[in-house]
Amino acid sequence: MAPSTTPRGKATSDTVEKYDIVIIGAGPVGLLLSTCLARWGYKIRHIDNRPEPTKTGRADGIQPRPLDLLKNMGLKPDIMAHKPAKVYEVAFWDPTSARDGIHRTGTWASCPSFIDARYPFTTLLHQGMIERVFIKDLKKYGVEVQRPWTIKGFKTDYEGDSVYPVEVDLQHVDGGKMDKVRAKYLFSGEGARSFVREQLKIGIKHKDPIAHVWGVMDGVVKTDFPDIKMKCTIHSEHGSIMVIPREDNMVRLYIQIASSTDKDWNPLKTATEEEVQNSAKKILSPYQIEWERVEWFSVYPIGQGIADKYTLDHRVFMGGDACHTHSPKAGQGMNTAFLDALNLAWKIHHVEGGFADRSLLESYESERKLVAENLLNFDAKYAALFSQKPPAATDVAAASQTSADNDENPFIATFKESCEFTSGYGVAYDANSLNWSPLHKAQSPIINPKGNKLRTGRILINSNVTRVVDANVVHLEQEIPLNGSFRVYVFAGKPSKSKKALEDFAQNISKPSSFLNSYLRSDIDSVSHHEQHNPHSHFFTFCTIFAAKRPEVEISRDVPGVLARYRDHIYADDIFDYKIPDATAWAHAKMGLDQEKGGVVIVRPDGYVGIVTSLVEGGGTVDALNSYFGSFCSKKLAEHRANL
Amino acid sequence: MAPSTTPRGKATSDTVEKYDIVIIGAGPVGLLLSTCLARWGYKIRHIDNRPEPTKTGRADGIQPRPLDLLKNMGLKPDIMAHKPAKVYEVAFWDPTSARDGIHRTGTWASCPSFIDARYPFTTLLHQGMIERVFIKDLKKYGVEVQRPWTIKGFKTDYEGDSVYPVEVDLQHVDGGKMDKVRAKYLFSGEGARSFVREQLKIGIKHKDPIAHVWGVMDGVVKTDFPDIKMKCTIHSEHGSIMVIPREDNMVRLYIQIASSTDKDWNPLKTATEEEVQNSAKKILSPYQIEWERVEWFSVYPIGQGIADKYTLDHRVFMGGDACHTHSPKAGQGMNTAFLDALNLAWKIHHVEGGFADRSLLESYESERKLVAENLLNFDAKYAALFSQKPPAATDVAAASQTSADNDENPFIATFKESCEFTSGYGVAYDANSLNWSPLHKAQSPIINPKGNKLRTGRILINSNVTRVVDANVVHLEQEIPLNGSFRVYVFAGKPSKSKKALEDFAQNISKPSSFLNSYLRSDIDSVSHHEQHNPHSHFFTFCTIFAAKRPEVEISRDVPGVLARYRDHIYADDIFDYKIPDATAWAHAKMGLDQEKGGVVIVRPDGYVGIVTSLVEGGGTVDALNSYFGSFCSKKLAEHRANL
Repeated sequence: MAPSTTPRGKATSDTVEKYDIVIIGAGPVGLLLSTCLARWGYKIRHIDNRPEPTKTGRADGIQPRPLDLLKNMGLKPDIMAHKPAKVYEVAFWDPTSARDGIHRTGTWASCPSFIDARYPFTTLLHQGMIERVFIKDLKKYGVEVQRPWTIKGFKTDYEGDSVYPVEVDLQHVDGGKMDKVRAKYLFSGEGARSFVREQLKIGIKHKDPIAHVWGVMDGVVKTDFPDIKMKCTIHSEHGSIMVIPREDNMVRLYIQIASSTDKDWNPLKTATEEEVQNSAKKILSPYQIEWERVEWFSVYPIGQGIADKYTLDHRVFMGGDACHTHSPKAGQGMNTAFLDALNLAWKIHHVEGGFADRSLLESYESERKLVAENLLNFDAKYAALFSQKPPAATDVAAASQTSADNDENPFIATFKESCEFTSGYGVAYDANSLNWSPLHKAQSPIINPKGNKLRTGRILINSNVTRVVDANVVHLEQEIPLNGSFRVYVFAGKPSKSKKALEDFAQNISKPSSFLNSYLRSDIDSVSHHEQHNPHSHFFTFCTIFAAKRPEVEISRDVPGVLARYRDHIYADDIFDYKIPDATAWAHAKMGLDQEKGGVVIVRPDGYVGIVTSLVEGGGTVDALNSYFGSFCSKKLAEHRANL
Repeated sequence: MAPSTTPRGKATSDTVEKYDIVIIGAGPVGLLLSTCLARWGYKIRHIDNRPEPTKTGRADGIQPRPLDLLKNMGLKPDIMAHKPAKVYEVAFWDPTSARDGIHRTGTWASCPSFIDARYPFTTLLHQGMIERVFIKDLKKYGVEVQRPWTIKGFKTDYEGDSVYPVEVDLQHVDGGKMDKVRAKYLFSGEGARSFVREQLKIGIKHKDPIAHVWGVMDGVVKTDFPDIKMKCTIHSEHGSIMVIPREDNMVRLYIQIASSTDKDWNPLKTATEEEVQNSAKKILSPYQIEWERVEWFSVYPIGQGIADKYTLDHRVFMGGDACHTHSPKAGQGMNTAFLDALNLAWKIHHVEGGFADRSLLESYESERKLVAENLLNFDAKYAALFSQKPPAATDVAAASQTSADNDENPFIATFKESCEFTSGYGVAYDANSLNWSPLHKAQSPIINPKGNKLRTGRILINSNVTRVVDANVVHLEQEIPLNGSFRVYVFAGKPSKSKKALEDFAQNISKPSSFLNSYLRSDIDSVSHHEQHNPHSHFFTFCTIFAAKRPEVEISRDVPGVLARYRDHIYADDIFDYKIPDATAWAHAKMGLDQEKGGVVIVRPDGYVGIVTSLVEGGGTVDALNSYFGSFCSKKLAEHRANL
């Protein structure tokens, strides 16, 4: 399935082994990148300096949006097979007014209903189990993580081999066996102590002058504390704790041990396992807690920091903790890492596959660094929200409502923002060549049509539709697997109203220099008729959604041939949504598209909306899309007019 | 976890190996029985005369209700990992009026919305894959199916060993190695040609004088027939076909080759693979169909038959195809087999575990034979429905509505009945000692309270609730795993209104001769505090559901100690259901229980409702339950009054 316009994975001149990419570190960021690229046919050298996957501790929270991603990759069942804990609510505990212990002051939903999440909870599971899910999947594509190996050096050297310009020295951690390889890319997913970042002399900017020392303990407890299976923020006369439930009756406790705003503070303050347990007992009093087993215990300093650059030359990249560190309280580490990797993966794919101009890679840093900066700003705000003043029960109740009436209350505004942010649904990429928001310089009445509720740079809104060929009720946003393709959703409105517009759309994408026809598969004549997603191009998958009941849609009559070829991606928008009872086509209505005339939504391969257009008669819709793709693709497309 | 009041699994007098049960045949019925009993701690000898699980062909349809069961066993993810086809709708095709081919006359939902199914579709997957899911699970409990072994003889002989009265001779199919074993039970899941049934000289009654010869073909096709991914019933000038989609782009075609009402008809009529393909091509014309691959092809006669008895002595039992054969059209074979096995499994468990009187085993035949008879009657009716007159489009549309307005139309009545029946939700056990319906002789104002919508002998109505300890939104009917226990659902209404009734309930089940306290675990003092389902007894799991919002429920304040011990089974009935918008406690309302005062529902270990009572102050509720359990349990319970 791998497209190939440049030679890949073959030694061109000498005996040095060549790879599309060398990935250092098999934590979440490295594994997700590796898994995507392996599936899309790239040759990967992946090493990790640990002898085996994470045994205990580290990150453990998968937020709602990354869970969507894992589902889209087909990995969610393997995650859920471990029976992770699911956090639906957060409870707040504070000292009683009598100062004789603690009491619950309120709870709130971790992903309230105003966020339209398929999985409105945080999934808690030991990082090692999550890593193994990826490792098992990688094996299917012939990639094994080499352990325990480490990176000893690297350089970018176009003269030696311009196709594989990165030379990397790898070594077994015991100091013996060495290997010099060449690659098109080098990726550091090494974590906070990144050799690659240090070699590149990329600095870390500390956004917040406060440094913290945290104690963290995973274990099985016996307790009468009633919220031990919920996420809790507990303040007491004796200190503060955060409780996080885990799989297998385990619980994680975070205790802040020390903090300082002194730049030169050396965070040597530490604590023993017993001291932390004794602190926890005091904090939880009058409730009892005893440990049956401690699985992991660690004390470590955390500073909020962000790397100045994510790459120097767009050949050597970094992601995950190598680029940003922050407090574990909001459970964002693994999630930000996953989305870093996803953002980079498809851009490498589209450049190496010949679709996109190499400049596309510049958007990795600009998009993901902004997210990290927002995360760090949020982290500070979130910490303040919880550590200063406990929320009043009325605030919590008001904040959980979906109505926007109370948004002038700063607590509620921060709460809503924080829920959206921590769920992963708040990630928004700014206007750029990929995201044609109303702020983008391209202006046309066809782009961002009136009423449209989709926001470019944000993920596609969830919707339920019926697949026409087999009458299965499906989640539209999950229908295209993570195949590295742009997702073209043609919301076709009512067949009787949109017939000509749909035919014109089909005719125009079939023109020689359209975005589709400019990037056809080289093996198009031998593609199996069973191929569902990429019969024409590796870079596009089409879905057509009619505002009609399923039995009313006759593919041979209603769907032009080029779209009908995606017969498993033709849908009827006929699933009632009680939240918008007056609609007649609920997916159209949720997106804010015309229920009679439809509209076209381009979703980037990573799930973010790129552009929304009307579906009009004539060539206007495809012209707009040619302009969109033409702004970053490698060829000149038809009707790519400068004024758009 | 296995309870034990009689010695089990140990040789008592000689060197003959002893088992709780010997199971012949590792198809669906044998495997489900084996899996249940293995999980509950029984010692099993399981043989099958095939060298390996089903390779191709045979049954492939899992209906909605059995899928609930597989989910309850934790096996659904492994089934779904194979990406089965899902049938949501059935399409009807008939000759065109111009007689120049076929056209679609209508479609209908295979499980319409008037059936409140969690999974409103049929799951289609090769039987061998389903068998392997069970085989993998059995291994976890130390049971391996011995292959290829067969049964050579058996006798029931109480004098030799009254605890293990069944002597069974087993032999390797190559005629070599033999083994004589003793068991408490022998089960035949051998299929239609059952050695055990023949030895017992149990006759087969043929309900319908028509015998049919079917051709069936599994394969991968290339076709422009638009409904190839749907279940279709196709009538044409050239004959009839049924289309069933399968996993991996496969499709199954059933073609009726011959039939006769002549009792002495010898169904030797056959057809070659090519003849069947040519028939299919003619029937589907004007559409094209070509086979890329044929995985399985078979021609076989089917008569509708039912065994006169399912057991002779309640030591040797039969189930599945050994007891009933019918046409494959409604996809009921595997489903009836599963439910046969489930019905028997828990009854053996409760007898051998010391809970139930041995007479409980008599209800296996009476309950399951009735279901088979209904199935055969239904089968004839269903066949007539489809083979005589195609449904008019208006009939289909009307039948798919949930309103009961059209029930006088016999077509629609049959349709509704057939949908409920084929989904598995129509199975209803008659009033007996286990099912205290309004027809049961026990009458009391407490039993079957007014408004109650639950029907004894039918499965529990689905509902969504919030688990109090961790705020997880859950499917209440799935909260107790298939652990062999009676499920006691205490719908507790409003805490303020039901406080005394709930306390009285707790006090009365804690009395020495209550149904609970009469069957406590012998190891009750050493049960881990992590035990969620059976802290007191292997025969009961308690759930308490409040008509309150989750944060309003304080377990330490609102739940009496004996129920609070099931802290993972305490729920808030606070999940809005848009179908009953006026309710305040939606699960209570769906069950038809008082939203303030609640009620108690006893669900049998196989998921069928046994008795429904009000929750009253005083001892009345527990008195009624003691009477219920006292009618089939092994001990005399408190307040077990004859007049109830």
